[in-house]
Amino acid sequence: MHILEIIAKKRDHQVLTKAEIEYFIDNYTKGLIPDYQASALLMAIYINGMNDEETINLALSMRDSGDVLDLSDVPGIKVDKHSTGGVGDKVSLVLGPILAYSGLVVAKMSGRGLGHTGGTIDKLEAIPGFRTSLSVDEFKQQLTSIGLAIIGQTGHIAPADKKIYALRDVSETVSNRSLIASSIMSKKLASGADCICLDVKVGSGAFMKNVSEATKLAKLMIRIGQSQGKNIKAILTDMDEPLGLAIGNSLEVIEAIATLKGQGPEDLVHVCAVIGAQLLLASQLEVSFNVAYNKLRQIMDSGVALDKLSQMIKAQGGDPEIISHPQVLLKGVLKEEVFAQSSGYIKKTDALSLGNAAKYLGAGRETIGDKILLDVGIVLNKKVGDQVKQGDSLAVIYHHNKGLLEAKAIVQSAIIVGNKPPKQKLIKKVI
Amino acid sequence: MHILEIIAKKRDHQVLTKAEIEYFIDNYTKGLIPDYQASALLMAIYINGMNDEETINLALSMRDSGDVLDLSDVPGIKVDKHSTGGVGDKVSLVLGPILAYSGLVVAKMSGRGLGHTGGTIDKLEAIPGFRTSLSVDEFKQQLTSIGLAIIGQTGHIAPADKKIYALRDVSETVSNRSLIASSIMSKKLASGADCICLDVKVGSGAFMKNVSEATKLAKLMIRIGQSQGKNIKAILTDMDEPLGLAIGNSLEVIEAIATLKGQGPEDLVHVCAVIGAQLLLASQLEVSFNVAYNKLRQIMDSGVALDKLSQMIKAQGGDPEIISHPQVLLKGVLKEEVFAQSSGYIKKTDALSLGNAAKYLGAGRETIGDKILLDVGIVLNKKVGDQVKQGDSLAVIYHHNKGLLEAKAIVQSAIIVGNKPPKQKLIKKVI
Repeated sequence: MHILEIIAKKRDHQVLTKAEIEYFIDNYTKGLIPDYQASALLMAIYINGMNDEETINLALSMRDSGDVLDLSDVPGIKVDKHSTGGVGDKVSLVLGPILAYSGLVVAKMSGRGLGHTGGTIDKLEAIPGFRTSLSVDEFKQQLTSIGLAIIGQTGHIAPADKKIYALRDVSETVSNRSLIASSIMSKKLASGADCICLDVKVGSGAFMKNVSEATKLAKLMIRIGQSQGKNIKAILTDMDEPLGLAIGNSLEVIEAIATLKGQGPEDLVHVCAVIGAQLLLASQLEVSFNVAYNKLRQIMDSGVALDKLSQMIKAQGGDPEIISHPQVLLKGVLKEEVFAQSSGYIKKTDALSLGNAAKYLGAGRETIGDKILLDVGIVLNKKVGDQVKQGDSLAVIYHHNKGLLEAKAIVQSAIIVGNKPPKQKLIKKVI
Repeated sequence: MHILEIIAKKRDHQVLTKAEIEYFIDNYTKGLIPDYQASALLMAIYINGMNDEETINLALSMRDSGDVLDLSDVPGIKVDKHSTGGVGDKVSLVLGPILAYSGLVVAKMSGRGLGHTGGTIDKLEAIPGFRTSLSVDEFKQQLTSIGLAIIGQTGHIAPADKKIYALRDVSETVSNRSLIASSIMSKKLASGADCICLDVKVGSGAFMKNVSEATKLAKLMIRIGQSQGKNIKAILTDMDEPLGLAIGNSLEVIEAIATLKGQGPEDLVHVCAVIGAQLLLASQLEVSFNVAYNKLRQIMDSGVALDKLSQMIKAQGGDPEIISHPQVLLKGVLKEEVFAQSSGYIKKTDALSLGNAAKYLGAGRETIGDKILLDVGIVLNKKVGDQVKQGDSLAVIYHHNKGLLEAKAIVQSAIIVGNKPPKQKLIKKVI
């Protein structure tokens, strides 16, 4: 077998065998295949596509390139959720505590933000002292003791995916369905959960711009998960506007705490309850979606899951005091308000633009090595459909002067006021 | 402008602008674009194609990446020919002297052999002392004094093509029409000739496997040449069987000398006369193909052009004595005969296999840095259509023991004996 034969086959629209895919992943991870051959193959895959079997084999090869976590000695049903990435998506910070409170074991590995999208690991690091890097033993012990742990992906989980993702990012081979699905699922399959819910974001702020593309991606990921006996669900949620009101790491932690205190924005509460209900059904703790959904809303309303968040923060070295005094996370940051230029109804708050505005302020990174500012970002005062009068505050920008002018101009033009309230649907589809 | 935008455009089937193609070529040549981005773009070009305008712009950008020779101060009509590469193709060694004798100025830059194909520069280096590397001034002086010079492509001619070709070779992006045409034409346009004849090889031993593909390639190269005001012709010639009888560097020099003495194999004599006649017509030294063709055959028959070869060898530091005593080039090499296993007619002598057999013996190289043996190779005793009896000698292998067993087995199976003489046509098409 030779990498040139594999490249030529995919270039010529042929189907790659399991052995050929394993050969590529194995040798590329070991550094025996140079980047310029891997990027040529990735481009051929991007343009000519892969069938489901090839995609499953790619996901499994990448999973097997590193450690595969065995959580069978942790008691209980281990669940995981994954978002394909959006703006203002703090679902994991809310969902972890409410599901752990409901009796599931939430064993989650998360990523960092890239481009206009945020990442759960960055958000958690906004909590002073919080350690996102645990050993496998520490991870399992914490799951056993409190039923909840959220950590960064270790270097030993799917190293092939890490290397290939970095190359895709600089060779314009990111947004291909098979490559996205195998990348996500290689990590999900390696991290040992029994039940998985995928939150596939659709809209301007997401990789998938329409429901049809997102549905195909979701179905492909479900097929990969099912091939390995996982109980796996997917929902498609809107990412034309940001989820909730806060965008930026500390700001999103504060909003997540408020949500767990029963003071969350309706769209965030709804998405958390829908994803959570899917996992309660998948794990057979509940049999009725409505019962499960209402149970989770009540947990949020009553504030009973706050203690789980506190336990996790304490277990991972953070200061649980921030739950009582979240505003300390914003000490020293400056504020700038953005006002409505006309009266009417909010027609659009463009997630992509707002994510980019937050990046200008320093909340996000262009490349994976960039340093970020944890306390900057944007808090919306209005959501799509809200009525506004000229001069009303539309949003507050939290900043350290860096990128303020650019961000303010973007925010101003990203929030569009129209004459009528628009129709929209937050949950697009459950698969 | 950014290379990622250019890659994404071609990936998404869009047409690249002249500025975008220049940006890629310029920055890749300077080392500012990494190989992994260039190979991703080359694969996108390979799969999604380029239109004629893009291909012309690619050729011109590569031409302009280095020196463009100006031969206007050399008196006379400067002509050049180019073969797309085959097995046993020693046409340049014969054509140079007969065209120079006819009054044209033959200003030729040639390449080295790669894979199963040979290269004129390697063949010339089989002549003791022959220098294939001349300065531009030396090249022009020699053209002015004797009307004939064949040199290797200098590092300053189309360096972009050199770098891109090396990358294509290791990323399975060689056999694309636009990439082949722009590669060849960037060098032809940089080397300053007024009239060009392209010899596009078709068949098992060539890059182009059929007449339809070869015709498209030829037309594309003609369009590139004409866009720059060149008088350019193309012919399609057969490369299912090797050209002439000899394969291997010294052996082909010996056959070329024999051809210039009126003792050449008919297929080689015919191809040389056809290509030469095209150039006599293009340069308007002759107006009738038949007259030009017959004139060149007569020059070969009579041996009058041998002196031109002698002048070139002397001018480039070689020993012209080899013209009188060519067999000295084979001193010390061993011989092994291959015999017919059955009686009948030669049905096929597979050029690709015979080229590979010569490579096993050390006559060719796998990668551009490999050392080669100049005096090894194969001389056929029979051509397609010849009658044979069991036990007749089919070919003689010239070797230094290296690779002999493999080569002998390949030669034996590459020469196929059938019941009837097959039909075939050496010159497939004139374009």
